Amino acid sequence: MTTSTSSDSQRTIRMAQKRISGFSKLSKEEKLAWVTEHFFEDSAAAENLIKSFYHRDDAAQKMLDGISENTLTNYFLPYSVAPNFVINDKTYTVPMAIEESSVVAAAASAAKFWSTRGGFQAEVLGTVKVGQVHFLWSGDGTVLKAAFESVKQQMLVDTDHITKRMCERGGGILSIELLDKSEIEAGYFQIHARFETCDSMGANFINSNLEAFAETLSNWGEKQPDEIEIIMSILSNLTPECLVRASVSCPVEHLGSFEGGMSAEHFARRFELALRIAKEDPYRATTHNKGFFNGLDAVCIATANDFRALEACGHAYAARDGQYRSLTHCKVEDGAFTFWIDFPIAIGTVGGLTKVHPLASKSLEMLGNPSAQELMCIMTCVGLAQNFGAVKSLVTTGIQHGHMKMHLANILLQLSATEQESKQTMEHFADRVVSHSGVREYLETLRG
Amino acid sequence: MTTSTSSDSQRTIRMAQKRISGFSKLSKEEKLAWVTEHFFEDSAAAENLIKSFYHRDDAAQKMLDGISENTLTNYFLPYSVAPNFVINDKTYTVPMAIEESSVVAAAASAAKFWSTRGGFQAEVLGTVKVGQVHFLWSGDGTVLKAAFESVKQQMLVDTDHITKRMCERGGGILSIELLDKSEIEAGYFQIHARFETCDSMGANFINSNLEAFAETLSNWGEKQPDEIEIIMSILSNLTPECLVRASVSCPVEHLGSFEGGMSAEHFARRFELALRIAKEDPYRATTHNKGFFNGLDAVCIATANDFRALEACGHAYAARDGQYRSLTHCKVEDGAFTFWIDFPIAIGTVGGLTKVHPLASKSLEMLGNPSAQELMCIMTCVGLAQNFGAVKSLVTTGIQHGHMKMHLANILLQLSATEQESKQTMEHFADRVVSHSGVREYLETLRG
Repeated sequence: MTTSTSSDSQRTIRMAQKRISGFSKLSKEEKLAWVTEHFFEDSAAAENLIKSFYHRDDAAQKMLDGISENTLTNYFLPYSVAPNFVINDKTYTVPMAIEESSVVAAAASAAKFWSTRGGFQAEVLGTVKVGQVHFLWSGDGTVLKAAFESVKQQMLVDTDHITKRMCERGGGILSIELLDKSEIEAGYFQIHARFETCDSMGANFINSNLEAFAETLSNWGEKQPDEIEIIMSILSNLTPECLVRASVSCPVEHLGSFEGGMSAEHFARRFELALRIAKEDPYRATTHNKGFFNGLDAVCIATANDFRALEACGHAYAARDGQYRSLTHCKVEDGAFTFWIDFPIAIGTVGGLTKVHPLASKSLEMLGNPSAQELMCIMTCVGLAQNFGAVKSLVTTGIQHGHMKMHLANILLQLSATEQESKQTMEHFADRVVSHSGVREYLETLRG
Repeated sequence: MTTSTSSDSQRTIRMAQKRISGFSKLSKEEKLAWVTEHFFEDSAAAENLIKSFYHRDDAAQKMLDGISENTLTNYFLPYSVAPNFVINDKTYTVPMAIEESSVVAAAASAAKFWSTRGGFQAEVLGTVKVGQVHFLWSGDGTVLKAAFESVKQQMLVDTDHITKRMCERGGGILSIELLDKSEIEAGYFQIHARFETCDSMGANFINSNLEAFAETLSNWGEKQPDEIEIIMSILSNLTPECLVRASVSCPVEHLGSFEGGMSAEHFARRFELALRIAKEDPYRATTHNKGFFNGLDAVCIATANDFRALEACGHAYAARDGQYRSLTHCKVEDGAFTFWIDFPIAIGTVGGLTKVHPLASKSLEMLGNPSAQELMCIMTCVGLAQNFGAVKSLVTTGIQHGHMKMHLANILLQLSATEQESKQTMEHFADRVVSHSGVREYLETLRG
């Protein structure tokens, strides 16, 4: 009993030592020292390793530290390129930042495949973004609805200083609508607003406008016998009207032949069936769409856009008809194979980190400093290429064929294999199942 | 006309020059030289900038280059920490790799808030993962169904060499089921298999088993008068049985008071309504869930797990009842405020890149080298903290309050403001709307 109490109190002390007040106010050096002292057995080794990821240039590192809070160092993602992307008759080399092996290889392979079959076609179907003000109104709904037109005019006046420069660039507020949502909660209404934000993703622009709308509405409320209570004002990442249509298409016979002598017709039929399955089966749809995002997110990160926004929007859009379905589609009609997507994608090429992060800025330069609309097309095409590559693997050689090779390469990296050892091990495992233990054992026999 | 033709042919030449064969076979130096020569105006400057992101240690860089394909350099994400995460009475400092400002600050703030209110509680409700073999059967369905039990036994025998070591660790194949899906396509069936993969994410393990199942099935088919055609074999990222329940809870009055003198009761009521809105309105649900993933993905990246898999699974799960809804829930009952989530999350702490990437390996050490189940809990709690922080901001100060400060800091970074200039600019914009042009103009007046 005494032992238990003593160990409990020691535990309490240890736990207390692992908590800290005022951490964010410490310098980066002090933060690093505290973390390594309290959470690593070998503090010095941890500190050295973490510092080894600093940028070579102190000024650049200082700038990078400022992007987020409590930064200790940089996390490295491989920064790769996929050449030969022909999109609307223009050839791009696309920057991709992603940790998953085989994604870049698949994108590059699909890009090259389609570069000799007409390339990718992409067009922007819309660029509208959405924001909402959620509020309660304690009075009669008809009074609010009757007053709304004049409140709306006042909102436009009150946001003039926010929208002025965006309007000059061709953007601004497109519409402001009052929605009665009292089926969710008595007295609950929404302002549903639509925006054009040109080359910026527009989050700050939209949120600033929405908060101003809320203030205008509150001011109106103060003059009423009943009450307005603003619950929250924020953009929506669901942007079904900010849409790109991207496709590839060619005569079936131009698809060529595939592994194991599979004919173009047979391939097209299997591919089309795989897409139909992904449309109907949510288990399959989830992984199918994940493959699309492998490509999309890699370009998103390399250009300092926000991949969580794209993921949330894309997947919610995939569920819009009441069942979660594949985002891409395939048809084989009149001898032509067509693979396409309508994808909602809200990104920017100005604002945010796009010009702050020096490598993101170089990514945009590599792409020819595209407009937001052009980048929407590029990113969607890379996702489509990735999805094509994944489904092509699945219906021909199987996914493990390529994956296990990559998996083996990772294990060899981890076990510090020499070039000669790697070569021998790859030959050995060419027709064997790759496992960590199997590779280790084989390396041990090589090393004698 | 002549001009146009000449310009067209020049364009064709330029385009041809931008395409390349055998790119992946080039050395890293050659790849970099080709990309900078063809896609940058100032090739030398681009090359220097890209190289400035190399790791300080050549051997470490070589290892990092091997993670993906066509790698030119590393993309830097800020690597930060959020201290004071109390989860199941244990205190963690959590590594987070994310480019979006205010995410780490919000996570750290929510962690501290709950650390004095009982901390986070989390438990693993299940760890089952899923895989599918999709195939066509040209014969009578009842024949297949009758034969399946013996085919299944053969599958278990034929995968023995793959599952042996996983079984020793307590994992393996949990079930193999035949599903008739002929409503989607005549003769279309699935093998739906469930797996336990212990501390590994298990993608390679599952896919290897599935491809072996497909082979066993094909072998059976060869002895039949009718035909089996395997369409594809692959794991599903949708894992509704690989689930964590995480929560925070405290008496409403312990929530304290909030900005503008908002009482604990009023806060709880507004928070609960915000959650109800996110449940019912897909526009709001999308952004609400995006906030959860801001926290989750940052830990996912820092531990070298695959965030696309988590995103796809989580969002598909959010749509499971036929409408896309919020993943988190809130109730205010019997004087207690409770905020929680049931979240499907399949990750690993062994295999993949977890031990290959030196910083990912340090992330796991920082967390006390957790099991996969412990990391599932940690990651879900960080997502929950992030979501709490976002909704708290929304229903109290509004999201722009914090965001605009961060936005201003980014603009100052970009305009290379000195510390003194930054201080003055921040004071100036404390009660003004932040815009890029406004900040630039103000800086210009400061600089005279």
